[in-house]
Amino acid sequence: MSAPSLPPSYRPLDIEGLRAELAGVPALVQRLGGAPDNWSIREVSDGNLNTVWLVHGPTGSLCAKQSLPHVRVDPSWKMPLDRTAFEKAWLENVAPFVGDAIPALLHFNPTLYLLITHCLDGYETLGPALLKGHDPLPVAHRIGRFIAHTAFHTSPRGGPFEECARREQIFAGNTVLTRITVDLVLSDPYRVHPRNHHHPALTDLVKQLHTDAQIHHAVCRMQERFLTSRQALLHGDLHAGSIMVKGTDTAVIDGEFALVGPIGFDCGMFAASLLLAGFALPDTDARAHLATALPLFAENFESEYRHLCANGAPEADLAPAFLRHRRGVDEDELAVIRQDMAGFAAMEMIRRLTGYAQTAYFTMLPEPACGERQKKALTFAMQLLRDRAQAWSRLMAPHFS
Amino acid sequence: MSAPSLPPSYRPLDIEGLRAELAGVPALVQRLGGAPDNWSIREVSDGNLNTVWLVHGPTGSLCAKQSLPHVRVDPSWKMPLDRTAFEKAWLENVAPFVGDAIPALLHFNPTLYLLITHCLDGYETLGPALLKGHDPLPVAHRIGRFIAHTAFHTSPRGGPFEECARREQIFAGNTVLTRITVDLVLSDPYRVHPRNHHHPALTDLVKQLHTDAQIHHAVCRMQERFLTSRQALLHGDLHAGSIMVKGTDTAVIDGEFALVGPIGFDCGMFAASLLLAGFALPDTDARAHLATALPLFAENFESEYRHLCANGAPEADLAPAFLRHRRGVDEDELAVIRQDMAGFAAMEMIRRLTGYAQTAYFTMLPEPACGERQKKALTFAMQLLRDRAQAWSRLMAPHFS
Ligand SMILES: Nc1ncnc2c1ncn2[C@@H]1O[C@H](COP(=O)(O)OP(=O)(O)OP(=O)(O)O)[C@@H](O)[C@H]1O
Ligand SMILES: Nc1ncnc2c1ncn2[C@@H]1O[C@H](COP(=O)(O)OP(=O)(O)OP(=O)(O)O)[C@@H](O)[C@H]1O
Repeated sequence: MSAPSLPPSYRPLDIEGLRAELAGVPALVQRLGGAPDNWSIREVSDGNLNTVWLVHGPTGSLCAKQSLPHVRVDPSWKMPLDRTAFEKAWLENVAPFVGDAIPALLHFNPTLYLLITHCLDGYETLGPALLKGHDPLPVAHRIGRFIAHTAFHTSPRGGPFEECARREQIFAGNTVLTRITVDLVLSDPYRVHPRNHHHPALTDLVKQLHTDAQIHHAVCRMQERFLTSRQALLHGDLHAGSIMVKGTDTAVIDGEFALVGPIGFDCGMFAASLLLAGFALPDTDARAHLATALPLFAENFESEYRHLCANGAPEADLAPAFLRHRRGVDEDELAVIRQDMAGFAAMEMIRRLTGYAQTAYFTMLPEPACGERQKKALTFAMQLLRDRAQAWSRLMAPHFS
Repeated sequence: MSAPSLPPSYRPLDIEGLRAELAGVPALVQRLGGAPDNWSIREVSDGNLNTVWLVHGPTGSLCAKQSLPHVRVDPSWKMPLDRTAFEKAWLENVAPFVGDAIPALLHFNPTLYLLITHCLDGYETLGPALLKGHDPLPVAHRIGRFIAHTAFHTSPRGGPFEECARREQIFAGNTVLTRITVDLVLSDPYRVHPRNHHHPALTDLVKQLHTDAQIHHAVCRMQERFLTSRQALLHGDLHAGSIMVKGTDTAVIDGEFALVGPIGFDCGMFAASLLLAGFALPDTDARAHLATALPLFAENFESEYRHLCANGAPEADLAPAFLRHRRGVDEDELAVIRQDMAGFAAMEMIRRLTGYAQTAYFTMLPEPACGERQKKALTFAMQLLRDRAQAWSRLMAPHFS
């Protein structure tokens, strides 16, 4: 990564710096209530990239997120600051279609790259929640609908192509974070790379990842899909760390990886999170229950997407209203989304087990279970990637045991 | 179309205005030689949109093209001026890969939207040339190679995805001319629209275009391909009017419709031009000869594209060099390009026979041949669009008689 040139007035905030910034924005002062000194500010950064704080005042709360000029967990990895600007743009572009499934945008400071949204009080991230026994079915249901709505409305089925082109112009600029996806998800696990690491139990499988012709051909196919399909605006990083839950409520955060791409990419990222959790769960009943979340998710996505496509949108250029026999989504198109979902789910699982930013799901398992369960997960993912013909049925009825 | 707001210093040039402009650019003065008064300037506009002049001086020549704030042949159809800026961007983006298959860019004046390129002395446009008996085989050969090279090098097989994203940011802005394609090529022929007209012999077929479910489903499929595939930078309007020939030399002009899209779109536009000429040619031997240009074009495109993909590019993100088993283009991908080529060829033929900007190929035929030959052409195109399974073999062995 090339070293970013910092805008002159940018500085990374500490808690008191953040307090002063918020105190300068009347709408936020009013929201929080009381005097700035009475606000409680707590850093909650647990991702890799940015600093995140939750702020509570006497009458309200908010969440503040600031880009750093480097990867938060690796200051030697320099990085431009514009990622919160893309997260803001993503929030703006999907907000009209998803209600309160995302935190509302409150404020953006473009020189500090500081993004202020609603605070999701009482929510927790999905990953740890699943391992603690949180019911996966409501979130599977809601994320299916969420992807269907964001995908439909940001595709040329949802409005004039000029709207898609406008979004494409914005998000094609998100090359820094897309480069991370291209490298970490679509490339590194298939070569020897210093960023990679893995549990010793995976060594033989990792060797196959570097050498297997069937896998490499499938990787090329999925690279082709990711890089050349512009079906809709994607979240771009829809793993369990980007989803927060509270009871049956679900919210999607962290849209900084947003890009225009194949719809099955978002579906696959989410599916991979469920699958990894399924392989990591120690309890067999809980595993069996989690396995039912996969088809529930797919059915909800598909039925909602079908429904939206069948109804169409007034100004759409794809399947426009004036066509006497306009067509909703057809089986060929859905088959492509299914293939993409399976292929990207496999690649996301593989990178979370053998690449740079790994899943924490398995770390609480004792040995030898920790290695064995990862080996099961990786074996499943590699079969999913290799065998396109069986991929969908495998994905819909995963055997975690 | 919304009325454009003209930049304050823009004005449409006449011959003397152009002379004065050129006289103010030292490099052009030097190229043309002599005194400005000695330059011969001739307007040659024959397209729909812009004014074009050829300028000759004692030591050199050039071609000047200026956008008008409206469609040249219909001043009531207002249009922004930026199309020559996109043509310039297209020239810059493909020049490194195509040698002298395009006229070299000499100068661009962004306030006058005035584009100056090499003059193709002694060249004529392909459409009239074909009807006068110009051999179609060399041009079929060269255009096949031309598409292969521009497509490969501007795709993520040809370099890092950031290069594709940069091009996508530029050309996603070309919404005004893309809107023309979406309306005139992909939409209008399939509904009753005041811009449409047709020969009386086509009335029954045109009714089918407005009502046939199979055709409408195929139209949706091709709309989906055009709007959601971002395989490579396309010329976007590669019909016979955008190709100039001189003996066996071939040059591609008029890239103002450039956009990132499915490779088969450029292939299909070119194929449609050959097909329309084939149906319009009165001489049966000439028709039979022209029929052989279709497979020659396809073979040249495919073998060149295969070859480029098999070799790959050093920094490519699709099928990257580090993959032990990196894969060239596979049969699935080529099958998609073939389907796109057939589908877009059909839609281009249909719109040139029933839409706004029609082919002039048939106008020299006497009645009833004029109507009969158009009816044959339209019947062929509709079969091509309807019957995907047979489309490729039909396209490769068209029966013009
Ligand atoms: N709106 C919010 N309300 C409450 N908590 C939030 C909110 N947004 C983020 N958080 C908390 O902050 C954490 C980090 O946020 P986020 O995932 O957006 O950061 P990130 O650095 O971009 O992460 P990543 O490296 O995964 O991209 C989340 O895991 C969550 O616990
Ligand atoms: N570089 C050139 N050298 C010689 N003649 C040229 C050159 N460029 C264009 N011409 C001539 O000018 C004519 C119009 O050019 P061009 O097709 O670029 O205009 P246009 O108005 O954009 O057309 P369209 O409506 O098809 O887009 C061509 O048909 C050709 O005869």
